[in-house]
Amino acid sequence: MCAIVGVFGAKKASTVAYYSLFSMQHRGQEATGISAANGKRIATYKKRGMVSDVFSQDILDSLDGRCAVGHNRYSTAGSESAGDAQPVFAKYKLGEISVVHNGNLVNKHEVRNELIDRGAIFQTDMDTENIIHLIAKSQKDSLVDRIKDMLTKIEGAYCLAIQSRSKMFVIRDRFGIRPLSLGKLSDGGYIVASETCAFDLVGAEFIRDVEPGEMLIFEEGKEPVSEQVFEPDFHPCAFEYIYFARPDSIIDGKNVYEMRLEMGKRLAQETPADVDLVLPVPDSGVAAAKGYADGLGVPFEMGIVRNHYVGRTFIEPTQEIRDLKVKLKLSPVKHLIEGKRVAIIDDSLVRGTTSKQIVRMLKEAGAKEVHMRIAAPEIKYPCRYGIDTPTKVELISTKYTPEEIADKIDADSLGFLSIEGLKESLGTERHYSLVSFDGNYFAGGNADSPGCAGGC
Amino acid sequence: MCAIVGVFGAKKASTVAYYSLFSMQHRGQEATGISAANGKRIATYKKRGMVSDVFSQDILDSLDGRCAVGHNRYSTAGSESAGDAQPVFAKYKLGEISVVHNGNLVNKHEVRNELIDRGAIFQTDMDTENIIHLIAKSQKDSLVDRIKDMLTKIEGAYCLAIQSRSKMFVIRDRFGIRPLSLGKLSDGGYIVASETCAFDLVGAEFIRDVEPGEMLIFEEGKEPVSEQVFEPDFHPCAFEYIYFARPDSIIDGKNVYEMRLEMGKRLAQETPADVDLVLPVPDSGVAAAKGYADGLGVPFEMGIVRNHYVGRTFIEPTQEIRDLKVKLKLSPVKHLIEGKRVAIIDDSLVRGTTSKQIVRMLKEAGAKEVHMRIAAPEIKYPCRYGIDTPTKVELISTKYTPEEIADKIDADSLGFLSIEGLKESLGTERHYSLVSFDGNYFAGGNADSPGCAGGC
Amino acid sequence: MCAIVGVFGAKKASTVAYYSLFSMQHRGQEATGISAANGKRIATYKKRGMVSDVFSQDILDSLDGRCAVGHNRYSTAGSESAGDAQPVFAKYKLGEISVVHNGNLVNKHEVRNELIDRGAIFQTDMDTENIIHLIAKSQKDSLVDRIKDMLTKIEGAYCLAIQSRSKMFVIRDRFGIRPLSLGKLSDGGYIVASETCAFDLVGAEFIRDVEPGEMLIFEEGKEPVSEQVFEPDFHPCAFEYIYFARPDSIIDGKNVYEMRLEMGKRLAQETPADVDLVLPVPDSGVAAAKGYADGLGVPFEMGIVRNHYVGRTFIEPTQEIRDLKVKLKLSPVKHLIEGKRVAIIDDSLVRGTTSKQIVRMLKEAGAKEVHMRIAAPEIKYPCRYGIDTPTKVELISTKYTPEEIADKIDADSLGFLSIEGLKESLGTERHYSLVSFDGNYFAGGNADSPGCAGGC
Amino acid sequence: MCAIVGVFGAKKASTVAYYSLFSMQHRGQEATGISAANGKRIATYKKRGMVSDVFSQDILDSLDGRCAVGHNRYSTAGSESAGDAQPVFAKYKLGEISVVHNGNLVNKHEVRNELIDRGAIFQTDMDTENIIHLIAKSQKDSLVDRIKDMLTKIEGAYCLAIQSRSKMFVIRDRFGIRPLSLGKLSDGGYIVASETCAFDLVGAEFIRDVEPGEMLIFEEGKEPVSEQVFEPDFHPCAFEYIYFARPDSIIDGKNVYEMRLEMGKRLAQETPADVDLVLPVPDSGVAAAKGYADGLGVPFEMGIVRNHYVGRTFIEPTQEIRDLKVKLKLSPVKHLIEGKRVAIIDDSLVRGTTSKQIVRMLKEAGAKEVHMRIAAPEIKYPCRYGIDTPTKVELISTKYTPEEIADKIDADSLGFLSIEGLKESLGTERHYSLVSFDGNYFAGGNADSPGCAGGC
Repeated sequence: MCAIVGVFGAKKASTVAYYSLFSMQHRGQEATGISAANGKRIATYKKRGMVSDVFSQDILDSLDGRCAVGHNRYSTAGSESAGDAQPVFAKYKLGEISVVHNGNLVNKHEVRNELIDRGAIFQTDMDTENIIHLIAKSQKDSLVDRIKDMLTKIEGAYCLAIQSRSKMFVIRDRFGIRPLSLGKLSDGGYIVASETCAFDLVGAEFIRDVEPGEMLIFEEGKEPVSEQVFEPDFHPCAFEYIYFARPDSIIDGKNVYEMRLEMGKRLAQETPADVDLVLPVPDSGVAAAKGYADGLGVPFEMGIVRNHYVGRTFIEPTQEIRDLKVKLKLSPVKHLIEGKRVAIIDDSLVRGTTSKQIVRMLKEAGAKEVHMRIAAPEIKYPCRYGIDTPTKVELISTKYTPEEIADKIDADSLGFLSIEGLKESLGTERHYSLVSFDGNYFAGGNADSPGCAGGC
Repeated sequence: MCAIVGVFGAKKASTVAYYSLFSMQHRGQEATGISAANGKRIATYKKRGMVSDVFSQDILDSLDGRCAVGHNRYSTAGSESAGDAQPVFAKYKLGEISVVHNGNLVNKHEVRNELIDRGAIFQTDMDTENIIHLIAKSQKDSLVDRIKDMLTKIEGAYCLAIQSRSKMFVIRDRFGIRPLSLGKLSDGGYIVASETCAFDLVGAEFIRDVEPGEMLIFEEGKEPVSEQVFEPDFHPCAFEYIYFARPDSIIDGKNVYEMRLEMGKRLAQETPADVDLVLPVPDSGVAAAKGYADGLGVPFEMGIVRNHYVGRTFIEPTQEIRDLKVKLKLSPVKHLIEGKRVAIIDDSLVRGTTSKQIVRMLKEAGAKEVHMRIAAPEIKYPCRYGIDTPTKVELISTKYTPEEIADKIDADSLGFLSIEGLKESLGTERHYSLVSFDGNYFAGGNADSPGCAGGC
Repeated sequence: MCAIVGVFGAKKASTVAYYSLFSMQHRGQEATGISAANGKRIATYKKRGMVSDVFSQDILDSLDGRCAVGHNRYSTAGSESAGDAQPVFAKYKLGEISVVHNGNLVNKHEVRNELIDRGAIFQTDMDTENIIHLIAKSQKDSLVDRIKDMLTKIEGAYCLAIQSRSKMFVIRDRFGIRPLSLGKLSDGGYIVASETCAFDLVGAEFIRDVEPGEMLIFEEGKEPVSEQVFEPDFHPCAFEYIYFARPDSIIDGKNVYEMRLEMGKRLAQETPADVDLVLPVPDSGVAAAKGYADGLGVPFEMGIVRNHYVGRTFIEPTQEIRDLKVKLKLSPVKHLIEGKRVAIIDDSLVRGTTSKQIVRMLKEAGAKEVHMRIAAPEIKYPCRYGIDTPTKVELISTKYTPEEIADKIDADSLGFLSIEGLKESLGTERHYSLVSFDGNYFAGGNADSPGCAGGC
Repeated sequence: MCAIVGVFGAKKASTVAYYSLFSMQHRGQEATGISAANGKRIATYKKRGMVSDVFSQDILDSLDGRCAVGHNRYSTAGSESAGDAQPVFAKYKLGEISVVHNGNLVNKHEVRNELIDRGAIFQTDMDTENIIHLIAKSQKDSLVDRIKDMLTKIEGAYCLAIQSRSKMFVIRDRFGIRPLSLGKLSDGGYIVASETCAFDLVGAEFIRDVEPGEMLIFEEGKEPVSEQVFEPDFHPCAFEYIYFARPDSIIDGKNVYEMRLEMGKRLAQETPADVDLVLPVPDSGVAAAKGYADGLGVPFEMGIVRNHYVGRTFIEPTQEIRDLKVKLKLSPVKHLIEGKRVAIIDDSLVRGTTSKQIVRMLKEAGAKEVHMRIAAPEIKYPCRYGIDTPTKVELISTKYTPEEIADKIDADSLGFLSIEGLKESLGTERHYSLVSFDGNYFAGGNADSPGCAGGC
């Protein structure tokens, strides 16, 4: 997932970036970083860890200047190095530059190989290094032209904020796969962020979404200039609504909580359950469960409590502690569940391991029947460019029908939202990227490198 | 609040204590500690911080033995010292002893003064030191007799777990103010804990609550021995149901979530609101809000999102960021709220500061009307022995009527649950401690030292 | 060893204590702590670690007041707990008290047992707790009388600084085993410290040594009052001169460096070596080696370099790295040593392990002959009360003659200073405590508990 | 200064590198790092801090493989970023590469500008990035040819260890400004290190110095291949002998301690002092002081004690503490100094600030006269490429005569070693780089960019 933020023309730009990243912590908890430009130089600080642990007042004070770009990195398997944090900073011919990037490039290997052939060196495996190299190697005279040059060479999903010592450039790919919104700070500055929840915290007013294929150029003393760099071909990622985004965010004009309610209601129509009670898997299943309960006309309760004090140290449990990972997070309210037929609503079902533990937990809590409902379609195709995505072999829906899976996870029944149902919940006026469900790769689609590249 | 746990006869007693304390983290986040006894010696580790930060595998391994007692300390103003963590350990005439204590002694000053007159020294202000001194100074020959001797000298609220090198003693005061339950581990050991949610995580079976005035004696190779040390005079603290305990816990036979639902329903009868939507202040207001919505027959939504990534470092906000403290935690789902008349349900109203910020937040999110409802009576009396309780001057309900407070916090209306309503919600078969609401101090009630001493 | 400091009547007493402890870091590196009294209360901070790691400006600022007592704890085997740091603070009948102690009580067990019989509790094994209990349990009305009362009950070696909220009491035992000096700060305040090197750093003027058996009472607005509590029976510990103290310190009127020079010269008379070069084992052997070289009229060189960057993490060496522990600290200057007959001067020889490694190192560096000389007598008796002292079995000199040891450590010869030689070097006008050499225990000498109790 | 190490063909190459860097900690304490290659990949770990703090057993275990290169970074003003640590790692056309570099390139700006013109990006200001870029951009087919290509483009001082996944390349510039030696490990592997003291710790046998202009190529299963890449023009840096290197190291065939003794003796001839006692400023002045004392026939004593416990936290001193920075490190042995005429020997005099404090300290300790002698010539020219070197304005010897400086620092006299004297002490068979003393820049000497580039 990841989150990016860009702040321009603000008195304490790095503080605004800090609070924005804080409010988007759910999009990435592995590493975080901010670069600030004060007209003369760019200063960067980045580190593994959560936003509120990484930054101190002293560090933010050292990141002075009226422009800041920031990034939260999603925890990805196998990349432990601090070097993989963003922003990526470099000195190059036109001065200094700092880049944050959310997304994945489908032609990353081709680009990198070509750059390497021309003598480029790389410290990490991040796409962001490609982007900086392409800018640095462009023969164009101005940064804006070099950025455009670079954009002709990359394909895939990207939201970018690029900072020079005195300007900021923001670009969203032509598919609009990942969200990006523009807001106005009350002191006159501007902010772009992956989610609008950032605006609410820092007191910014939402202006509009950045358009697919649009570039925004920010310069001191001027209004932001918009340029449509590419013809839009809008394919926003449905997963933002399914579970990435915070329920209070508005993604491309649609509120996440309401979309989830809709999906829940539709789920109730498509795969109703004869139950006494509807429960969500907290927190991401709450709105869909509410919609499902409303759709069925059955009581809804927060019958599973989520424990938010999750530590980093693993303590070997005693033999008696089964299903530790799930139990550390989730606890059933037995009195609500005992003797009841319950529907439990989750936002996705990937390997089935967690679902099985949840079903067992509910049965141990006394549930007479447990009907699992997933407020999303079956995931049958790995998202090629999602670093953390299970392979096709691990995706239980590639091998088994819902009935077979229900059996495996000991649920009394299992139902998914249909692809059609998802589309209609989200609104049919747009073509969502549904690769994981229907396998229709589209961006940069060729035989070797298909995919939505959204990085989900 | 605080939490205690005692584990006896278990293979990895300190690990069981660790996970128990982890599940009761909500009862105290300032400090935590565990003592373990292996028949030959008691080892103790305690420190400021959260359970999962304080303990590592190495530390737990060093806390070997089949008996462990543990404690979570609630964050109290003005006591920053690590020395205030529990368990409190001491060597004394009969060997070694370690004590954890949840509650407050009403005669603490008299006891301490008398001890000091007799030459005792104290490192902290904790009641627990009194308790250990009284045991050490008793002339009785056996620990059990010394403990009984000590119990005749203390008054107030207490749940105690006392550990020698090979035995464990558990005592709940005769008022039963704080909860304490007994469970059985699947490997044959026993566990006592402040809340039953600990049993669920460690795979223990709930046996029964420890009775008011009861002492349990645990000895290797024997069944626990129960002794009724005092005549019970049951006055459990209503705040456990109102907001202390986790919703999945069962406190003295009653499930917390269900009690909160009841309070919400009763609140709907007593002080209905003509609204389009009912919202909880998450997380503690959820069940009551659900009950209120059900009672009114009005839609319920999780219209405020709670951010659980709260850091420790304070970063000075920009001028634009108003009501930072509330906004870091709570974010409204604007789309749900816009143009609506909403009821917002909280579990208490103390100074009114936070309520005012929440009302403002909801109005900024577009609410047409904001009706605040509190699923508890007006707090008019400070709980004398609650370390962290505001004084009477700070309690807004001691000075203003609900109408006046509604005005001050800019709510369109404000309603509280009546004392009668609270009693009936919880069940009239018991006399709850309602000191904060009705001022009827009872435990150890004399002119100088009245109070329930529950420490709420 | 340990170090104590007491500061009275100074503007920033805790800062003076901090720098004093810093300058006495060589006396104890396990833990450190400072208590400061401001007339109203005593604040304490103590922790495992070095002085400059434990304290920050914030902590020192919080230790406000014109009186401070501080302590450095020597690393002792088997006591890992932070609770063993000093000062030890307690609240008792007359208010608050904080105590630092350097030394060992020979009747500690009797005292503790009696205290425990009377109902006292103990958190640690430190003598200092005994001292506080004795003060707290005294029936006398004033602190000064309680301290005197306490002093009649303890036997052994002690230098004490005891602080109430507004006064300070300093006592040195009647044997004067450990050093303690009085100095005057330039702003009018007073300082007592284990070593005079503390005075030099903080800019204090040396006044005089605290006398054996003397108590000094410091009170705001008055000159310090001296009281001879016990008849002196002066037996200062010879090890202060041999290796405890810093060479620039003046211990009981004699400069440590000069005493070491003397011991080296005497050693040259008693056990000369036919060598080309004299080398010290740095740093503590330097002065004695210089004296030995001067005595023989043979060149002296700093032929072994000491590496002061010693870390805390142990990294498993490769097979090729022999004698790692010695080599991490000491490196020979081969060019000086090659082909030479060298005398190597150390300050003591306990188990012989290190000496053997040093001899091997010198031979590998090309020394033709290696003659080891020890600027102290053979250690034949364990210092009963030295926590860290090897037992008699481990002391190589209890089992072997110098010739036999020379053989074991592969030295061409080995010589020790005689007891007579040590006495004459230090001056015969005093009776030094020489227990480790001659076995003549004296303080509190009875069959069960003989010993100098100096804790060396 | 900095230190580098390269280890090849060793079982635990990173452990050997670790201990080597540990023994060369005096050459750089700001940051440290190690890269290890196991034939398949290069793993790197680097961080600000001391060797023994940065690495743990776990980290070293993760740096597996038979080849390792490592670096200690000297603390340089103004470069606080962790990114400035070495080794510098990169992926490039031929695979992976890791480089450590000690020295300074005189044409760094030209090289960087040209690289930047060609589209290169830089993360830091380190020369090492230039070197990697030049290798990556070379059109040659093999790494060895690319390295040679790179070498034709850089000028200045450099000792390099370059590691691919399976080979290691070591190069010393043709001037041989910085030292570099080759040793053999007892298990058959090879080691190159800045100082021979590394060999002594890890049990390696010294083979020979790497020649000026020589490249050594290490390949598994083969003997190291030597290639003379440039005609040597030997100008080793005199500062290695004056104060950089450890006294036990042998730099280009000459032992540092002996050279310092020689300089001290020559100093005694050139600028004798009529004194009672000669004292060194420890630790670097010890050998020269010994030589000076021997030359004069006057007693030498370690009359100033150095405190090695220096912390990182700055605690604001009280008003009474003068000359804190010097006093924290150095303490005079008053008894030795009192009433004496002393000569104090230091290894250099740059700004005069410290010297003034030392003279004052000695006078306060009772010295009747203080004669300062510097065992090196007057520093009149800033070393252009030394990052940390004072500018010409700050060099006191550029403005004042020794007599004037003596006056400023309150010394009774001041004498320097002559340039001639230095040359003769070190041996006239070589032309040392004496830029700081005589201003004769030579390497890459052109009008804009003269200098020895040794980075001293």
